[in-house]
Amino acid sequence: MKKEVKDVSMAVIRRLPKYHRLLKELMEKDVTRISSKELSTMIGFTASQIRQDLNCFGGFGQQGYGYDVGELYNEISRILGLTSHYNTIIIGAGNLGQAIANYSNFEKKGFHIMALFEKNPRLVGLQIRDIPVLDVDELGSYCEGKNIEIGVICTNKESAQDVADVLVNLPVKAIWNFAPADIIVPDSIVLENVHLSDSLYIISYLLKNQE
Amino acid sequence: MKKEVKDVSMAVIRRLPKYHRLLKELMEKDVTRISSKELSTMIGFTASQIRQDLNCFGGFGQQGYGYDVGELYNEISRILGLTSHYNTIIIGAGNLGQAIANYSNFEKKGFHIMALFEKNPRLVGLQIRDIPVLDVDELGSYCEGKNIEIGVICTNKESAQDVADVLVNLPVKAIWNFAPADIIVPDSIVLENVHLSDSLYIISYLLKNQE
Repeated sequence: MKKEVKDVSMAVIRRLPKYHRLLKELMEKDVTRISSKELSTMIGFTASQIRQDLNCFGGFGQQGYGYDVGELYNEISRILGLTSHYNTIIIGAGNLGQAIANYSNFEKKGFHIMALFEKNPRLVGLQIRDIPVLDVDELGSYCEGKNIEIGVICTNKESAQDVADVLVNLPVKAIWNFAPADIIVPDSIVLENVHLSDSLYIISYLLKNQE
Repeated sequence: MKKEVKDVSMAVIRRLPKYHRLLKELMEKDVTRISSKELSTMIGFTASQIRQDLNCFGGFGQQGYGYDVGELYNEISRILGLTSHYNTIIIGAGNLGQAIANYSNFEKKGFHIMALFEKNPRLVGLQIRDIPVLDVDELGSYCEGKNIEIGVICTNKESAQDVADVLVNLPVKAIWNFAPADIIVPDSIVLENVHLSDSLYIISYLLKNQE
């Protein structure tokens, strides 16, 4: 019954984490089933959009019954690949790098943070939870044979491209970039840029238009 | 010529920071004008989508000429309210709170971070750049008469709702929430939740479907 997912649009895919989060919350509230209409009220997409989105991955709901919350959560976890394991390293052990390393929930979802790398000698040698902060000069030798899949860039803007080049050559398969810089990588590398300022600018817009 | 913007959909508004970022990059590369078709290639929306989006705020482009990059950047800055000034405080001076306080670019866009508040006595008394870390017990007295507009929540999940309640009562006008918790605030308060995991889950999806 599962459809081939290769042709699902990125717009649909980008909504999946929202469904995942909402279903988790419903499970925590012991809700066991939900209609697309109720989901719609909670998530802010139309019921028809929700049915369309979920149909891209095969039909999960039943007419007149709705969705089984636990089952749908597990299916979306599986679709998102959160049942896999990803060897992950962080470059830059400043505040942001440490914050991400400290966020143990990523570990639970399969993102295994193996080490942080840093050039500042005052930070090298620290442990974040049980994760070591290593000298960035050791990056290549450390990663050899370890099948590192995700590299997280938490450096400043100026170092971001150089770090990306090193990660591409390791090679990693994906880069999660927090530096406020537009880094360039080959098409074969998955790249996600996090632009924290985007949502701050939305706050600004809404404050301005509220007045 | 400017249209009334109250009825612009959130989907359009959420694309504005992307235009803003792209135009900034074009300015840094000394590009002075650009067609919607060229913008489309760079930003990944269709040219027709771009024209529609920008038409919501009045017509900025000229047929056969395209958009004046500097002018469009300034207009979008103005639409986003980035020419205003917002008194901002951060609750939670752990790694993430400090990372945000250190990000001087927010200051340049008008988000004036006045203080961080923290309950951990080991962090109280620190200075991040020139921003003091104060005891969270001083929050109410500090904010009195200061017209604090934005409160940033950088606490753990467990404290997030309590902190949100305090911020709502100050009152702030907007909350930027980084805690991985679904906080509830009155409709009159602008609320933006940052879910860092969303883009990590997209990486996971793309890695899984690439294989």
